[in-house]
Amino acid sequence: MSDGVRLWGGRFEGGPSEAFDRLNASFAVDSRMWAHDIAGSRAHAQMLVATGVLSDEDGKSIADGLDRVAAEFSDGSFFVQPGDEDIHTAVERRLTELIGDAGRRLHTGRSRNDQVATDVLLYLRDAVDGQLAAVAVLANVLLSQAERHVEALLPGYTHLQRAQPVRLAHHLLAYVQMLIRDHRRLRLVRDESLAEAPLGAGALSGVGFPIDRQMTAEALGFVRPTANSLDSVASRDAVADYLHAAATLCVHTSRLGEELVIWASDEVGFVELSDAFTSGSSMLPQKKNPDAAELARAKVARVVSDYSGLQSLVAKLPLAYNKDLQEDKHFLFDAIDTVELLLPALAGMLEGAVFRTDRMAAACQDGYLAATDLADHLVRAGWPFRRAHEAVGLLVRACLARGVGLADANSAEITDAGMAGIVLPALTAEASAEAKVSAGGTSRARVIEQWDAARAEVGRW
Amino acid sequence: MSDGVRLWGGRFEGGPSEAFDRLNASFAVDSRMWAHDIAGSRAHAQMLVATGVLSDEDGKSIADGLDRVAAEFSDGSFFVQPGDEDIHTAVERRLTELIGDAGRRLHTGRSRNDQVATDVLLYLRDAVDGQLAAVAVLANVLLSQAERHVEALLPGYTHLQRAQPVRLAHHLLAYVQMLIRDHRRLRLVRDESLAEAPLGAGALSGVGFPIDRQMTAEALGFVRPTANSLDSVASRDAVADYLHAAATLCVHTSRLGEELVIWASDEVGFVELSDAFTSGSSMLPQKKNPDAAELARAKVARVVSDYSGLQSLVAKLPLAYNKDLQEDKHFLFDAIDTVELLLPALAGMLEGAVFRTDRMAAACQDGYLAATDLADHLVRAGWPFRRAHEAVGLLVRACLARGVGLADANSAEITDAGMAGIVLPALTAEASAEAKVSAGGTSRARVIEQWDAARAEVGRW
Amino acid sequence: MSDGVRLWGGRFEGGPSEAFDRLNASFAVDSRMWAHDIAGSRAHAQMLVATGVLSDEDGKSIADGLDRVAAEFSDGSFFVQPGDEDIHTAVERRLTELIGDAGRRLHTGRSRNDQVATDVLLYLRDAVDGQLAAVAVLANVLLSQAERHVEALLPGYTHLQRAQPVRLAHHLLAYVQMLIRDHRRLRLVRDESLAEAPLGAGALSGVGFPIDRQMTAEALGFVRPTANSLDSVASRDAVADYLHAAATLCVHTSRLGEELVIWASDEVGFVELSDAFTSGSSMLPQKKNPDAAELARAKVARVVSDYSGLQSLVAKLPLAYNKDLQEDKHFLFDAIDTVELLLPALAGMLEGAVFRTDRMAAACQDGYLAATDLADHLVRAGWPFRRAHEAVGLLVRACLARGVGLADANSAEITDAGMAGIVLPALTAEASAEAKVSAGGTSRARVIEQWDAARAEVGRW
Amino acid sequence: MSDGVRLWGGRFEGGPSEAFDRLNASFAVDSRMWAHDIAGSRAHAQMLVATGVLSDEDGKSIADGLDRVAAEFSDGSFFVQPGDEDIHTAVERRLTELIGDAGRRLHTGRSRNDQVATDVLLYLRDAVDGQLAAVAVLANVLLSQAERHVEALLPGYTHLQRAQPVRLAHHLLAYVQMLIRDHRRLRLVRDESLAEAPLGAGALSGVGFPIDRQMTAEALGFVRPTANSLDSVASRDAVADYLHAAATLCVHTSRLGEELVIWASDEVGFVELSDAFTSGSSMLPQKKNPDAAELARAKVARVVSDYSGLQSLVAKLPLAYNKDLQEDKHFLFDAIDTVELLLPALAGMLEGAVFRTDRMAAACQDGYLAATDLADHLVRAGWPFRRAHEAVGLLVRACLARGVGLADANSAEITDAGMAGIVLPALTAEASAEAKVSAGGTSRARVIEQWDAARAEVGRW
Repeated sequence: MSDGVRLWGGRFEGGPSEAFDRLNASFAVDSRMWAHDIAGSRAHAQMLVATGVLSDEDGKSIADGLDRVAAEFSDGSFFVQPGDEDIHTAVERRLTELIGDAGRRLHTGRSRNDQVATDVLLYLRDAVDGQLAAVAVLANVLLSQAERHVEALLPGYTHLQRAQPVRLAHHLLAYVQMLIRDHRRLRLVRDESLAEAPLGAGALSGVGFPIDRQMTAEALGFVRPTANSLDSVASRDAVADYLHAAATLCVHTSRLGEELVIWASDEVGFVELSDAFTSGSSMLPQKKNPDAAELARAKVARVVSDYSGLQSLVAKLPLAYNKDLQEDKHFLFDAIDTVELLLPALAGMLEGAVFRTDRMAAACQDGYLAATDLADHLVRAGWPFRRAHEAVGLLVRACLARGVGLADANSAEITDAGMAGIVLPALTAEASAEAKVSAGGTSRARVIEQWDAARAEVGRW
Repeated sequence: MSDGVRLWGGRFEGGPSEAFDRLNASFAVDSRMWAHDIAGSRAHAQMLVATGVLSDEDGKSIADGLDRVAAEFSDGSFFVQPGDEDIHTAVERRLTELIGDAGRRLHTGRSRNDQVATDVLLYLRDAVDGQLAAVAVLANVLLSQAERHVEALLPGYTHLQRAQPVRLAHHLLAYVQMLIRDHRRLRLVRDESLAEAPLGAGALSGVGFPIDRQMTAEALGFVRPTANSLDSVASRDAVADYLHAAATLCVHTSRLGEELVIWASDEVGFVELSDAFTSGSSMLPQKKNPDAAELARAKVARVVSDYSGLQSLVAKLPLAYNKDLQEDKHFLFDAIDTVELLLPALAGMLEGAVFRTDRMAAACQDGYLAATDLADHLVRAGWPFRRAHEAVGLLVRACLARGVGLADANSAEITDAGMAGIVLPALTAEASAEAKVSAGGTSRARVIEQWDAARAEVGRW
Repeated sequence: MSDGVRLWGGRFEGGPSEAFDRLNASFAVDSRMWAHDIAGSRAHAQMLVATGVLSDEDGKSIADGLDRVAAEFSDGSFFVQPGDEDIHTAVERRLTELIGDAGRRLHTGRSRNDQVATDVLLYLRDAVDGQLAAVAVLANVLLSQAERHVEALLPGYTHLQRAQPVRLAHHLLAYVQMLIRDHRRLRLVRDESLAEAPLGAGALSGVGFPIDRQMTAEALGFVRPTANSLDSVASRDAVADYLHAAATLCVHTSRLGEELVIWASDEVGFVELSDAFTSGSSMLPQKKNPDAAELARAKVARVVSDYSGLQSLVAKLPLAYNKDLQEDKHFLFDAIDTVELLLPALAGMLEGAVFRTDRMAAACQDGYLAATDLADHLVRAGWPFRRAHEAVGLLVRACLARGVGLADANSAEITDAGMAGIVLPALTAEASAEAKVSAGGTSRARVIEQWDAARAEVGRW
Repeated sequence: MSDGVRLWGGRFEGGPSEAFDRLNASFAVDSRMWAHDIAGSRAHAQMLVATGVLSDEDGKSIADGLDRVAAEFSDGSFFVQPGDEDIHTAVERRLTELIGDAGRRLHTGRSRNDQVATDVLLYLRDAVDGQLAAVAVLANVLLSQAERHVEALLPGYTHLQRAQPVRLAHHLLAYVQMLIRDHRRLRLVRDESLAEAPLGAGALSGVGFPIDRQMTAEALGFVRPTANSLDSVASRDAVADYLHAAATLCVHTSRLGEELVIWASDEVGFVELSDAFTSGSSMLPQKKNPDAAELARAKVARVVSDYSGLQSLVAKLPLAYNKDLQEDKHFLFDAIDTVELLLPALAGMLEGAVFRTDRMAAACQDGYLAATDLADHLVRAGWPFRRAHEAVGLLVRACLARGVGLADANSAEITDAGMAGIVLPALTAEASAEAKVSAGGTSRARVIEQWDAARAEVGRW
């Protein structure tokens, strides 16, 4: 590391062992933050000039030098040197090569500890912004499919058993509700967890120059500086908050993935996925595998693990900064990358999915989906619900034994079930769905009302 | 289950096997929610009366019956029956024993799926309220200790190596900052994650009666009903949000626990814990073990596991309700109980902790804590920071070799380090601390400013 | 704690605070180990007598006293006292009440640290023995069902898409293979991880009496004492080994659970679960929910969490014993209890399960399951596999477009797919299955061979 | 993918979307297995020739072609094509480019499902072999340091409180015991978990050619083929077994890391780490940070997460292969890489570590470390242990109040503690250590005995 940053000079007699260097080096991981590191340095230098710590000339020189370093990263001409243990030393080393002593002045009034904490938050903010947009795209695809399928009925399931008819739009809107919460969680990360800038906390105790932390905070898009310098370099709360948001999002997409896998099976056949989101088999020529849906299901394991890994990493560490915290990026970047891969693929897959409403309708011909409606009918006739529930259960058993649906119960069966004299109402799927008039229910008006509200919410994003 | 709820009647010919019953039964786990279950039923019944689904008479009878059941739970006279598979069936079974057919009408217009989802949220809200208060107590204890220790200096650590002097108040306030974020996270759980009531979602598709979900939502302290009935019974997002808040809180307390364990060690000796929060050894008569601090450190493992367990539980499940979701309470209740045990013990331990400021002051006599201040001094004299950093590093090496502190460097060493002609400033811990004038830094004025702001924030809770 | 163990005497002036006591006390958790604690004490006392550390008289008195304490636990007459912080102090306190000074001599030459480590291993060994037996029961149920279903064919699935016909016996035997590995893992826990007794390691450095650790180890069923006293009280490796075995077992049962849930669905209908292992719905009278299968699927989340919790608990702890380790039992007991509940319920559910081989056979009428067999046919005719695979793929597409199976391809389609002149072989499911003659394949002879080997293996357990 | 493998031909009309391709492609992850993929193909082709499925000529052509592909990977001249979704298709595509139709015959009698399962096991076996060697190196470094430090005494700690003196060799040997278990666990992975070859299981149901699976198994270094073809492609047990071994190893190294961090602190000062394994601070010129020790502590979080991630990934999946399983490599490779980075760095750090036995000896001058020895002395004089323990506790309290060690107790204090007439024995650290004569204890003879046994064990590796 010819003339740049020399952490291995001064106090140290020997250089690092190769084994240690391999363990310690993080450039391969953190170099993706180059733009954020340079942005942070730019804001820091401007503030140092504004507060008189640096001369205008040095400030100008640094700004120009950082532009050149940024250009090298942009056009791929940046050359890593053996001693560049991380992106921060690499940028400063190169800057100093380019502009000399002014580069050596850049680190005045800051430490790598507050610098890296700031870089991570800046990077995370950009990632969150991108994911907010990707969530919106996915929500719009779901809204669009829901809009086309208000009339389609399919069996709603509990315990994966057919339970009651629901509108396909209603089913799809359940995922929109999850995404609305995911979007809120991500917004909270951006607006709350990422509100405070650690820059200027120094190594841990603050900085020996009269720097203006509010100025750098605002220049970098934060609301204010952090309140406590030790906490600033020791905390990874914002990363944990994001990982929680990402993990919960992936819980939701894993459920959607599982449903699409089941729906795409030969037995269910509720959805036909496009060739563009499925794949073939190396051995079985006839296969069309729902890989994208399976991967949507699979990815939750790694993002939940990223969460627990990050929290376990930070747990039990004394204040303030410890080297362990360098590993935060392993978990953070993996989650960010995973969500960034996942959301567009899911949106594309859903956009091209053809829902087989004919098969859904056929599945609604199951003879027992309206059992609750029959019980409700008895309740309206004055029966206590529990007695009605039990009587309908008896009738179901009798019909099952004879292999007919509830609508085909004969009068002996009706009488045996304790419903002598009861005239069965129409027990169609459509009637059952329309009966669900409660807020959030599956009747047409309620589903449209829900769609309108969700569309309005998504439209505000 | 003589005359009450008979889920095992109707459609079923045989009862459950004993092995299944042991696996399936949740009464031992969920009976702690009896008050919330009864509150939910009370609100539901009142609404059914208000909307004309139930008669006034039945409503009155149910309200009285629920009071009697509640009284039995309160005074310990409630007898569980073999068929009471969960708290919900137990309450309804007993209610029906007490009031007959009116009890059988209570379940009109709801399902166990929305009922249990509502009960869990009600229970969680109470728990969060208690924990908000417990966080405030702990924060106040820390503020109180900080107030007494603005003057005390100890070495601040990075990598567990002495780095720079910090005020003890400053160090303690770092934990207050964490608690401020924890309090915010818990408030968000209460205000956002718990805003919507699932009650009235029915089994999954809504309810076949014109119920008023806004009315029950408000009666139970929610802001509004959930928007989608499938999502209502399938989602455990609020539980995940809480577990994230609890896990992050426990990450913080685990760090505090680790620090107290280290500080209470013979070698460090920065704190003396009171007998009331330590324990002896069965074999070693002289031991005084910081058990409460160790347990504060330990508990994070279980709460982070509760988080990942809950998310993994919900992951990959198709809509809507699945029996798997019954297990949510295992994770939720364990985390709630853990935090409830932990916070008061930590507050008590910290309240009675005696900080050994004499030993802290002695540790600040380390001859190198002011190295950065010396580098800053050179920077103020015009040196580029990197050159200053390197020069001070050389001086440190020379002093270490001779076994003296920086303040005792001789002129040859100063010259050899490239600082010929430089007059060393006063390198005391107090001077070093006072130099950290940046916002959030450890100078006296900044610490007092920080304390004031934190006190004001905590005072608003 | 009148006259018994007084850890809070001697060095301590005050008793524990109530908040600390609640956090610290473990009696509610560890009292289940009473028999193992007493067994350990009995062996320890016998050895102390044999080595001359205790008099015969004291040894006799202790043995009698321990019998009386054991009897009190057995018949429920043991009264816990407020000071009984854990099972170990409770037993010793009671023993001393019963026999006086001899009881005070029992703790000679041991510490709670080695005592608790030993108790946990003894308890775990009993649990493992029980679970080995329960795995055998489950394997036998699967073998028994497999024996009855060698002839039945169902579609084998990859990506939950029908792929190739397999024998139901073959499918069930896949789970037997998993259980064979689970049984091996559990045996390794018992034979290797639990081979060494920590008793006699003392607090951490060994014991100041010439005790015979080999004697106590053997008396308690271990092979030998541990080799290093610090490691003895610090390690929880055996617990981790067990939790890995349990977690992997639960991964397997979760897959079985998922399959049963899918197979029990209306759409697939491959299995009818008995009423004894399903449950009804509080709202939907017609439902028959596969709760036991769902819980088998669900439990994996908690046991994997128990694993990661235990490892995270022990991680980062300095030697030797730390209070954190007390929490090991939270994770261990939860996993033990879960597996103990799960295995019998699964065995019962599978024993009573009726496989709908008619529906499986119908699903095999899918026209494309034999596509690989057609490709293999072409290969035998000299085609390179990749060309055969591609040609069959083209034929599949043509048949799909016309809505017929492969067996109904017409000669134009066959020619267009590049197979002009090829005579299609019989493409039945039975022919496809019988073609899989490779070891471990689904042809009848191979499945019977596999069944025989598995039966022999399970028979040796 | 001009002329090679065309999974996207045949049945499919369109190619994959770009978003799906990014999500689905695994070449970047799995290309590291190129040598194992080629080895598997080579063995497969040889067997196909031996069993008459392939001609000698084709077999020869394939063998030569695979050599050429391997050479391209070795020398970096292999060019990835856009359609190479994974290493398996890339190798086959290139092979076919090189040798034409013979390459298209290679996939006869196998599927990607059994191929990838085999490749992963082959890769894992190589990794395990390397890690077995690295564990041996680390164990030898510890043994070597232990050999040099049999005489050195330091305080042994429980609860991080000084408890009893132990020999430094004894303390270091505790880690050797952990490594002995780690080595055993890794051997079990290699010898048991990796004993069976999945190759020849086909897609899931076996293979339609009379292949010889025992032959390929042995050619690839396995003991035998797997017993069940569905299980073969569905199981990831071997990966889980390895991840458990790796996670437990990292729990151990995290404890060593924590201890070294504490020992390297200014307050404790028991170890001086070499410059080659520490790093400086960007802001604090005097710092020498134990980064390698901190990273040893930190890495456990990611490997435990890898474990729970893998298990959660496989959990709940129906048989047989699902795309989710592709993600196994994310967890597996991360753990392998982590352990491979960690072990040499730890070994190097420990080899160069200078233990400050002078500071350890000074810490043993603590006046209370021999308290147990005094209690044991009373026991030998006939006191019941509990009374002795309590009396010594009283004496400790008195001495603490006066600020002297136990050895300086005066006769009034001795009498007040109930020990009137007792002559205190020599209470030196050396005497205390030598008194621990029990097996595994810290007396010189026992430590040497332990060292000899451990050396012999490690020598057998």
